[in-house]
Amino acid sequence: MNNLIIKNAEQVVTCSGFAGKQGREMSDLHVIENGTVIVTDGLISHILKAGETLPVNEQDYRVIDATGKALLPGFIDPHTHFIFGGYREEEFSWRMRGDSYMEIMERGGGIVKTTNATREATEEELMETGRQRLDAMMRLGITTVEGKSGYGLDKDTELKQLRVMHRLNETHPVDIVSTFMGAHAIPAEWQGREEDYIDFNINEMFPLVVKGELAEAVDIFCEKGVFAIAQSRRYLTAAREQGLKIKIHADEITPLRGAELAAELRCLSADHLLQASDEGIRAMAEKGVVATLLPLTAFSLREKYARAREMIDAGCIVALATDFNPGSSFTASVPLLFALACIYMKLTPEEAVTAFTINSAAALGREGITGSIDVGKQGDLVLLQFPSYKFLPYHVGMNIVDKVVKRGKIVCSLH
Amino acid sequence: MNNLIIKNAEQVVTCSGFAGKQGREMSDLHVIENGTVIVTDGLISHILKAGETLPVNEQDYRVIDATGKALLPGFIDPHTHFIFGGYREEEFSWRMRGDSYMEIMERGGGIVKTTNATREATEEELMETGRQRLDAMMRLGITTVEGKSGYGLDKDTELKQLRVMHRLNETHPVDIVSTFMGAHAIPAEWQGREEDYIDFNINEMFPLVVKGELAEAVDIFCEKGVFAIAQSRRYLTAAREQGLKIKIHADEITPLRGAELAAELRCLSADHLLQASDEGIRAMAEKGVVATLLPLTAFSLREKYARAREMIDAGCIVALATDFNPGSSFTASVPLLFALACIYMKLTPEEAVTAFTINSAAALGREGITGSIDVGKQGDLVLLQFPSYKFLPYHVGMNIVDKVVKRGKIVCSLH
Repeated sequence: MNNLIIKNAEQVVTCSGFAGKQGREMSDLHVIENGTVIVTDGLISHILKAGETLPVNEQDYRVIDATGKALLPGFIDPHTHFIFGGYREEEFSWRMRGDSYMEIMERGGGIVKTTNATREATEEELMETGRQRLDAMMRLGITTVEGKSGYGLDKDTELKQLRVMHRLNETHPVDIVSTFMGAHAIPAEWQGREEDYIDFNINEMFPLVVKGELAEAVDIFCEKGVFAIAQSRRYLTAAREQGLKIKIHADEITPLRGAELAAELRCLSADHLLQASDEGIRAMAEKGVVATLLPLTAFSLREKYARAREMIDAGCIVALATDFNPGSSFTASVPLLFALACIYMKLTPEEAVTAFTINSAAALGREGITGSIDVGKQGDLVLLQFPSYKFLPYHVGMNIVDKVVKRGKIVCSLH
Repeated sequence: MNNLIIKNAEQVVTCSGFAGKQGREMSDLHVIENGTVIVTDGLISHILKAGETLPVNEQDYRVIDATGKALLPGFIDPHTHFIFGGYREEEFSWRMRGDSYMEIMERGGGIVKTTNATREATEEELMETGRQRLDAMMRLGITTVEGKSGYGLDKDTELKQLRVMHRLNETHPVDIVSTFMGAHAIPAEWQGREEDYIDFNINEMFPLVVKGELAEAVDIFCEKGVFAIAQSRRYLTAAREQGLKIKIHADEITPLRGAELAAELRCLSADHLLQASDEGIRAMAEKGVVATLLPLTAFSLREKYARAREMIDAGCIVALATDFNPGSSFTASVPLLFALACIYMKLTPEEAVTAFTINSAAALGREGITGSIDVGKQGDLVLLQFPSYKFLPYHVGMNIVDKVVKRGKIVCSLH
């Protein structure tokens, strides 16, 4: 049954608004106290204030009493690499004790290890681990997740990753938004022929992705030693010409003016941005490019955090994401994401909630159908064990989800 | 039924050893590959290597297949303040935006808010929230937890806190080790009469605690503006004379030579230690005082972490704890504890596991009955979803507990 009434929530944190919120707008969560939300046939049909009469017949609905609890839109994670083979737990210890990435690569670690394991994994193996990871994300309140290919770096494995996400999207409650990322690294087979590898992606892979409806967007790792600005421009421009949305891993380690490129091309989002310049930040704000920040990666790598405060103050649409992957950020921890955003990036709790709901929906172009509690949107909701969204960063690192609702159906109940 | 066989665990991480482990000893986890552990009548009766024949009749036991999973001793959290009334989620935001502790106190926040709420709470209310918190800890793999009084700061409320923990210990699977901490702060009623308040604790409270068997140890907050070194010496010496174990909050904010005092008095543990001196560290190592470190507090307060690496290298018995409390560390996040220990305090995964099992048992004087997988100890166990303990810090911030066993009984099953 996809008819649901959630009654008397101490707070209904609507995050209302159909567009990504820029700068100061991020502080306004449009909270309704003692509110009731009704989902009919999977879509939000009514939002009631305290004392308003129920406009539907209660008998046709499952009814949840949310007294003492806060209700929010389901969380949206707009940047992950969650389909992969193998793990890199040994490498984690090596990295912690100070071994260099080169030493780790020589010992068989790094992205090559994941690429090899992903190539070797069967589609069913990837389905099974993918399903388990989606379950873990769902328990943390995530109702929509982006997933990237990019651990195949060859035709068959890239398509395998995308097919797995396509199948999981059809069978798992969590919505999956797929992104093609052939340009995640330069595979060994193409070393020294980077331009040819870009051509291969543009001429062979993009058409296959479009034809098979296997991804909505493409992404590229624009970084010193990986793909240059000019290569990124060529790859992304071609993708857009073929009807795909465009995203970019920009200015993570080296300040290459990736944020500026994202603004120039009007990318849907630019992600990481630890080294983004002031001009890049201003340009992104002006062009409405979503700045997707990945604090769990910075935390895991002991890096400095992206300048979230400056970005918001400059009027950017700031979103948050987990960057779930087996190397630099093996985590989907929503609670740690909120803690890092508020304690270490100086977002207010309000800004952090906006960044992981309506703004992360905007980072995927899904802000019209999810990311806020507005009539007509999908009934994607998270009920907390506590009366206020303020417990999200305050109960540091603790999962405080009580129930998760996807299109009006309770898909997870932790108490 | 308290008879249990856990079969074919990819790793049995025994953490074997009856004493707290000092320095280099912390690196050796005594792992058995493809091992089997048998718990009979609540106590560990057999630990088998691959291929050894079961020495008991399988029909008398519940049998768990642990193929592909790692089995560890249940985690032991040796420093918390988990019984309290009210929350301080507003104050968290104030603190994050940079308000001073004095401003927060003037607005009705700080420890006074918790003290007032704890005084007002009924015993049943404290039981209910206490039970919920123990449930959350148990889901994270904690099988023994220390809890301190110290939010009453008057006779009735201190005793109420201790009574609640006593009752929870009798009714909840998690073992609770109670500590009396009348000297947590100087209550308003005693301002300017600190010595009298120490006398009150020594002459009235300690005897009540001993007589009622309400706590095994006492603790004091030795800090500039709270209790001085001489006051701490007097309080702890008197407690020991009355038969109580002694612990100290030492050198957290100001370097007062609290670690030296702990060594002088041979305290069971000294906790926090962010400002401990080199001499203090050496003295603690020499006298076998457990150094209990609280990385979640440092993380929450944006403080520097205690010098764990130097302490281990100096031969200290290092333990880890959550410091669960409503102000400076509102969290029992075991996964975040492991991540911080390994990523930010440079412990190896092996050292972190030792610090949160056998060494945290030693911090409570419980190393003889729990904290390792040794024949004769309580069947307190944690089964992970992954094949190695190395996933504890690697799967950053994620709860990877599959099952929790307390005295041979499965008390929590997450899959």
